[in-house]
Amino acid sequence: MFDTIIIGTGPAGISAALTLKQLNKNFLWIGSKSLSYKINSAEKIRNYPGLPSISGTEMKNVFLKQINEMEIEILEAQVTGVYDLSTHYAVLCGNDQYEAKSIILGLGVESVKPIEGEIELLGQGVSYCATCDGFLYKGKDITVVSTSKEFEHEAKYLAELANKVTYIALYKDIDMNLNNVTVIKGMPKKIEKENKKMKLTLADSVIESDGIFMLKAAISPAVLVPGLEAAEGHIVVDRQQKTNLKGVFAAGDCTGRPYQYTKAVGEGNVAAHSVVNYLNSLK
Amino acid sequence: MFDTIIIGTGPAGISAALTLKQLNKNFLWIGSKSLSYKINSAEKIRNYPGLPSISGTEMKNVFLKQINEMEIEILEAQVTGVYDLSTHYAVLCGNDQYEAKSIILGLGVESVKPIEGEIELLGQGVSYCATCDGFLYKGKDITVVSTSKEFEHEAKYLAELANKVTYIALYKDIDMNLNNVTVIKGMPKKIEKENKKMKLTLADSVIESDGIFMLKAAISPAVLVPGLEAAEGHIVVDRQQKTNLKGVFAAGDCTGRPYQYTKAVGEGNVAAHSVVNYLNSLK
Repeated sequence: MFDTIIIGTGPAGISAALTLKQLNKNFLWIGSKSLSYKINSAEKIRNYPGLPSISGTEMKNVFLKQINEMEIEILEAQVTGVYDLSTHYAVLCGNDQYEAKSIILGLGVESVKPIEGEIELLGQGVSYCATCDGFLYKGKDITVVSTSKEFEHEAKYLAELANKVTYIALYKDIDMNLNNVTVIKGMPKKIEKENKKMKLTLADSVIESDGIFMLKAAISPAVLVPGLEAAEGHIVVDRQQKTNLKGVFAAGDCTGRPYQYTKAVGEGNVAAHSVVNYLNSLK
Repeated sequence: MFDTIIIGTGPAGISAALTLKQLNKNFLWIGSKSLSYKINSAEKIRNYPGLPSISGTEMKNVFLKQINEMEIEILEAQVTGVYDLSTHYAVLCGNDQYEAKSIILGLGVESVKPIEGEIELLGQGVSYCATCDGFLYKGKDITVVSTSKEFEHEAKYLAELANKVTYIALYKDIDMNLNNVTVIKGMPKKIEKENKKMKLTLADSVIESDGIFMLKAAISPAVLVPGLEAAEGHIVVDRQQKTNLKGVFAAGDCTGRPYQYTKAVGEGNVAAHSVVNYLNSLK
């Protein structure tokens, strides 16, 4: 069992990982080995103390170097749920399960809010995780809603399994030139289920398929962690980054504005120290 | 009148200044042109995201370079009080006064707690500011309590004015070799006033003089800002870094543990954004 599991490889998760490593804690860090897509795409950051006038890509490389030098590993996976086992927590990544005494959530913030029916039909035709649920749709027709270019490789994986894919891209510069993929632009409005078929309504059309994958940078925290208190789309935390769930801490954009790298690293640091205090209190 | 006055040149003040500059606000920044003595003396910092395994001096130089590149000025002064003028605030530095709509306190944390009688006799024989009050003791005998080597230049300034100086050093590697200065080691216990003479009690001696200067890195926040709510030596703030006083924000070590550079820059960033929101609310 891990002391803690950090979920998220944005600035908050990075800061928490560096501090927990320095404090010699036994933690698992789940996210993307290329860190955060958002960092990478930032044009120029001028107000991060210590990295004057740096591009997002440069910043990402500096962070990656530091993580490597401190010999910290990242588990590349998509977390699908965090569950309270009363004495500790279980983190599910599709079929894999990891357990820890405490959790740090560095989930980032949703750029796209859930649409009507999305949350209600999650696991009943709606999925957030291509690698977890893709096999359920082998040879079937699916709809994929993608908020960013970073998810194209997941969509391509789905296209290999599925019969036909309708790909709805909420970004520019789309590269999904596959035989069985139809790319369309448009903003999804709502999801309905009728006679085992999923219906996705756009502004001027309705797309019917066997399943809908919503690929986005951040999953709604309350969906990921049942029982977690949120307000206006943000996880409610105190000054120690404690959430309403004992042993669960949150840091960075997911806790609210300002959406700033500097704020996120600060909160990640505090969350790491709060985890240490929490672990000590268990003894 | 300034939009805001930032007090303190540690990591919290630096972060607030960088962000307010980027947001094009009209602010005054008061502290030390060599930033924070504490940064400078840190041996090795490993968990600051973006500056892997850096010494305090290196970190200070990186910060200074960034501040210069963004053309941010520091007013080298010692703040002696912050006063609420109901519509705005006045910041006193000895005889100089500056006014602003809001205040960011990045005061750091006291390494040495006030001793008995210190707060009560402040301004009545006890002073925190050599440059403000030194001239009052021209030709007289004074006692100087110094918590760090960085204050030796202030003590030397006092020695030029005073007849005789008893210098109590609470640090190692003392360099105060002047004719009229007696250096002693020892921990001050209490201060009393009797017949216009100041009595400083140490463990095994009592030193009598005309005035006592307490030179330390951080002044007790509640002493500096009348009416400011503090608890256990820290300024009470919310998640937006708001204090109990309207328009007064605080960030960094002065708001509580963990005493970490990363936490301090995060809070400085949030305080800067909260100031902007506050200024907008005044319109």
